[in-house]
Amino acid sequence: MVDNQSFQLSVEELPHQTQEYLETLFAVGNGQIGVRAGHPLKVNQLYDGNPGVFVNGFFDSEPIQYGEWAYGYAKNHQTICKLPNLRGIVLRIGHECSSDSEWQTERTEMNLDMGAGILTETYHVITPSNKQFDLSLSSFASMKRRELYVCRYTIAHCTFSDPVALSHTLDQSFSLIETDDPRVANKHHQLEKEVRGEYQIWTAPHSGKQIALRADLGPHQLTDGASIASIFQVALVDDNQANFFQNQRVDYATLVKEQEESYQAFWEKSDIHISGNAQLQKGIRFNLFHLNQGAGRDGKTNFAAKGLTGEGYEGHYFWDTEMYLLPFFIYTNPEVAKQLLSYRGNILPQAHARAKELGQSGALFAWRTIDGNETSAYYPAGTAQLHINADIVYGFQLYERVTGDQELIDGIGKDVVFETAKFWLNYGTYTRKQGQDYFGVHGVTGPDEYSALVNNNFYTNKMVQNNFYYAAELAERYGMYPEERNKWLAAADAMYFGFDEERQITQQDDSFLDQAVWPFEETPAENYPLLLHYHPMIIYKHQVCKQADTVLAEMLFTGDFSFAQLKRDYDYYEKVTTHDSSLSRSIFSVMASRIGDTGKAYRYFMDTALMDLTDLQKNVVDGIHAANMGGSWLSLIYGFAGLYYDQGLRMANHLPKEIGTLSFTLSYLGESIKVTLAQNDIFCELQTDSLLVVEEMDAGIRIKQR
Amino acid sequence: MVDNQSFQLSVEELPHQTQEYLETLFAVGNGQIGVRAGHPLKVNQLYDGNPGVFVNGFFDSEPIQYGEWAYGYAKNHQTICKLPNLRGIVLRIGHECSSDSEWQTERTEMNLDMGAGILTETYHVITPSNKQFDLSLSSFASMKRRELYVCRYTIAHCTFSDPVALSHTLDQSFSLIETDDPRVANKHHQLEKEVRGEYQIWTAPHSGKQIALRADLGPHQLTDGASIASIFQVALVDDNQANFFQNQRVDYATLVKEQEESYQAFWEKSDIHISGNAQLQKGIRFNLFHLNQGAGRDGKTNFAAKGLTGEGYEGHYFWDTEMYLLPFFIYTNPEVAKQLLSYRGNILPQAHARAKELGQSGALFAWRTIDGNETSAYYPAGTAQLHINADIVYGFQLYERVTGDQELIDGIGKDVVFETAKFWLNYGTYTRKQGQDYFGVHGVTGPDEYSALVNNNFYTNKMVQNNFYYAAELAERYGMYPEERNKWLAAADAMYFGFDEERQITQQDDSFLDQAVWPFEETPAENYPLLLHYHPMIIYKHQVCKQADTVLAEMLFTGDFSFAQLKRDYDYYEKVTTHDSSLSRSIFSVMASRIGDTGKAYRYFMDTALMDLTDLQKNVVDGIHAANMGGSWLSLIYGFAGLYYDQGLRMANHLPKEIGTLSFTLSYLGESIKVTLAQNDIFCELQTDSLLVVEEMDAGIRIKQR
Repeated sequence: MVDNQSFQLSVEELPHQTQEYLETLFAVGNGQIGVRAGHPLKVNQLYDGNPGVFVNGFFDSEPIQYGEWAYGYAKNHQTICKLPNLRGIVLRIGHECSSDSEWQTERTEMNLDMGAGILTETYHVITPSNKQFDLSLSSFASMKRRELYVCRYTIAHCTFSDPVALSHTLDQSFSLIETDDPRVANKHHQLEKEVRGEYQIWTAPHSGKQIALRADLGPHQLTDGASIASIFQVALVDDNQANFFQNQRVDYATLVKEQEESYQAFWEKSDIHISGNAQLQKGIRFNLFHLNQGAGRDGKTNFAAKGLTGEGYEGHYFWDTEMYLLPFFIYTNPEVAKQLLSYRGNILPQAHARAKELGQSGALFAWRTIDGNETSAYYPAGTAQLHINADIVYGFQLYERVTGDQELIDGIGKDVVFETAKFWLNYGTYTRKQGQDYFGVHGVTGPDEYSALVNNNFYTNKMVQNNFYYAAELAERYGMYPEERNKWLAAADAMYFGFDEERQITQQDDSFLDQAVWPFEETPAENYPLLLHYHPMIIYKHQVCKQADTVLAEMLFTGDFSFAQLKRDYDYYEKVTTHDSSLSRSIFSVMASRIGDTGKAYRYFMDTALMDLTDLQKNVVDGIHAANMGGSWLSLIYGFAGLYYDQGLRMANHLPKEIGTLSFTLSYLGESIKVTLAQNDIFCELQTDSLLVVEEMDAGIRIKQR
Repeated sequence: MVDNQSFQLSVEELPHQTQEYLETLFAVGNGQIGVRAGHPLKVNQLYDGNPGVFVNGFFDSEPIQYGEWAYGYAKNHQTICKLPNLRGIVLRIGHECSSDSEWQTERTEMNLDMGAGILTETYHVITPSNKQFDLSLSSFASMKRRELYVCRYTIAHCTFSDPVALSHTLDQSFSLIETDDPRVANKHHQLEKEVRGEYQIWTAPHSGKQIALRADLGPHQLTDGASIASIFQVALVDDNQANFFQNQRVDYATLVKEQEESYQAFWEKSDIHISGNAQLQKGIRFNLFHLNQGAGRDGKTNFAAKGLTGEGYEGHYFWDTEMYLLPFFIYTNPEVAKQLLSYRGNILPQAHARAKELGQSGALFAWRTIDGNETSAYYPAGTAQLHINADIVYGFQLYERVTGDQELIDGIGKDVVFETAKFWLNYGTYTRKQGQDYFGVHGVTGPDEYSALVNNNFYTNKMVQNNFYYAAELAERYGMYPEERNKWLAAADAMYFGFDEERQITQQDDSFLDQAVWPFEETPAENYPLLLHYHPMIIYKHQVCKQADTVLAEMLFTGDFSFAQLKRDYDYYEKVTTHDSSLSRSIFSVMASRIGDTGKAYRYFMDTALMDLTDLQKNVVDGIHAANMGGSWLSLIYGFAGLYYDQGLRMANHLPKEIGTLSFTLSYLGESIKVTLAQNDIFCELQTDSLLVVEEMDAGIRIKQR
């Protein structure tokens, strides 16, 4: 199965071939190490690429410079460190050396085997004295042994008889990118390097974070037809970790076999099959492949906005994890979901400290961070997005409901839920409106970053209500916080949700519908995304959404709304949404499915499914759009298949006419369910000894415990 | 008259004597040059002072570093340059030199003659070899010749016979102050110095701004009892200015005489006499003295927030000029008011460019600037305070009404009014509320910086309405903009003013009254000002005002409100105002007078009148609070005397019982009016040939044209 052509991504299929774009798309990683597909021979020559290697959680920091400082601002930047291009080599043939002179190289093959997680490349090389040969690479980041990056080099078709000496160098020049784009990292840190016996310790000087690195740098003499496998061991140095590395020596063939087995297992749990569109099928597998590559799995790291494929967003973790990535992992790879959530438990002390700094009770998670400390340097679209607290709780809750695993909640999970509930009760406020006391959260920014510091953002209030209810449920279960529990329930019951009676639509926030609608007709196409062409003040004072906000809340809580309401809100908010965020279209796709507009759902889905392969947002150079990749899973599974948790897994058939069949696997309460949708048909295959049952419902099915 | 003890400020009268505080209070200036009273002998020894000299408009710039950049942000800081302590000297007696060794100095006299604008000091000096003598200084910045700073040194009571060699050095060490306080400048620029014949050119390297400086640096040999007058010529180098300086030689005695005459003329027009409290009388004169010292008078410079007495707020000009300082100048020194307003006309091109950058029509004046370009590095409490546009227009309007001088309006004035009106029409928006179309300004920050980016800030809407009406009046007068005129009138007529029916109070903005009231009872005294102890998010989501906002609007347009409404609003907003801004108390004093609470008016006034002498805000070291000094004039004249422009000058007697009589002079339509208030009595003395008439009204009088 894994040799299937739709698991192979070849460079020839891609719409353009600029070096930086290919480096991102063909990056290989395993959640711990990520290696961009930098040119193997340009190790000390600047070229039109941006090669590099990233280690999840390895960052440097520096004080944030503010034009004008204020109390409580985030103190330090955190920037993931770019390591040298490990796969880069220096070749010597006789007196000629590839790093001293310009050797001509032509790429003749570049193929990613997504079924096995292995990247294969071949370059035809011509030296200045016209010696010619083929250089092939076969590389991967080991899924079984996460400290290992492996690259095998083969020399073939030599027009000369001298041996080729192959060596690595870790002293490399970097190209520097200067940009004003707030979405791109713009910092480069010099690492301190120290040799300790057979390994090196590299230290980020300001954060003090360290990695250990071990490799045989050569040189190795290769004759025509010979291969050498370089194995790099790379790991974050943990305070409690005397030995950084496993010391077992494993040969290349074994590593390849393990890699194939690991990917086979991954695809069995995670693959989605679509009939009728080979490009789309491949695009979806590409997304799932990158989701697998990017997730930290040690409970101490998470999933960066760009995975480990680039420097965009400085390698930070956002709410993207819980709201866009976690559903995929919860429903297919719950053990990964558990690790991602454990990370949040691990940074709870930092969240406590942050709440305290802001004079609030409980815990407030950082909007963007690597080590748990707030690093957002523009709080109106950073710290003010308090909803991340409730997003994380939603992640824990969904994890528990779908996996049935209470262990995580028994441990750190319940503390996360309680502490965030304490924060909301303190931060939120009761207001009297029309003779009634309502609870609401004021002075926040919702998911829509084109409206900032508003009162009663609908999404936030809805998520906070859920946070309170779940906290109350757990308080009862564990016999804790009896007094707080009553307050949480009271606040949840009194939660304010604005509604515009005249237009009969849900209010995004207290003032959104009072603003003038953005002058879309007068806005030329090149002025999008708006954030790069208009001052925030101008954007904020208009009715214009960067992304799904109310519509996202309605996706998460679809059952709480009438069909007519969902449709009215969708129609209204779609008109004022620019989708300038890559987190938007997938949600509009899901909700288009649910309100019955499968044509629109398909169009939005097609934009998201192939966003990076087609370089839709023109910034793949900075890394893949991980949340959008998770979003394309949502479009398929939450949208076309209508998956919605409601005392079991509800599904409905919203398959657009362009797709013949859609098959996928879900994990529910430890069991594996194979689901197939065809036009007007849903078929579920349960395990033979299943404790589940499929119930027919009005508009679809529900899978629940017997 | 000027020898009156209440015109003398002596160091012994002050509540504390720390060096930096005295350097600010005893700074002398003339609107072009400001000289802090730095120690005369500590020119190359760091000490607990912060000496320096400022030239109005002479600044350096550097790019503003943002933690996260966004489109349209202000690009460059501007920071007024601190020049060396010109009054500092090096003395040599035999082999002893005051800059090589520590000479003991004891200040035996420090007296500011506010009647003549001359500072006198005496120091008893002891050299390491125990030579003793008295060093006296007599210094001032010439009001008649603004390029001159004059300091005469006298040596007396020598215990030795050697001559004393006195010289100046301009190479001096600076003490560096590092602080996070957003209200203090934190930058130090190295000036490039070049000698050109008998003068020097000093260049701020990044802004390219230049000053020329000429002085005789000595040495001069002084024997016991001898004096030498050092005369420094300092001027901004203007592109069109071939000769920097007047070349006329003037002797010290003549300069002193001119200075005395200038101050005599100033006090005749500006003095305020209060009976019954000598300290208060002196404090008021001290304020008026500094108002006279700080105002730029060349149409190219303005009045910095700290005058020319310190580095606070980086030497920037704010709305403070129009709303807090200009009334004093308009009613007493209209020729200075005209120059301050001409500055706004001069920077209209920059205001045009800024509006364009924000995609708006017309002109938007910078919130804080020296050269007219926006330098506010935190736009929610910077650029978003759009009201500065309407504040400036209010200044032009009041100038025209009170002086009767249309020349300024005929010229640049009308353009300022038209261009700001164009901006408002474009930036503002029509919204439908309760079936009616209202015009409002959304996404702005009003004067109260503890509420940011709100809709329909009452003060802003009120000021914009006035801006529109004045623009329409001028459009008609000059036969210009007939189409726009109609739109301006329509928008002004449709202006939205929020009113809370339940509480019967004016809404500060659309959401202010929905916020929770700040927990004042739980806030310890040391947590004020709030901005230094709470994150802006936390402050913004509460009902808490840094300063007068709605109350300020009601001071400017008192006639538009019922007495009961003024009182209700005052009572409500006073309870939620911290007065963390020095711009607040004076306005509350005025409005307390107008709503009949003269006791409260007096208490607020007493806080403002002596704010700097008593170091109430504990930051006099960074410079005087110019706006508050203007505010204390408002408390007296707008408050106690009830001055309010309403088709003439209306006045009313709100004299608090603590003050026996209050006398002052007003300039109206070119005439001088002497006003005296006693308990239950207002007396106006018009010129003998006056074209004005005093009309008795219900609650006071009105002075109008015959």
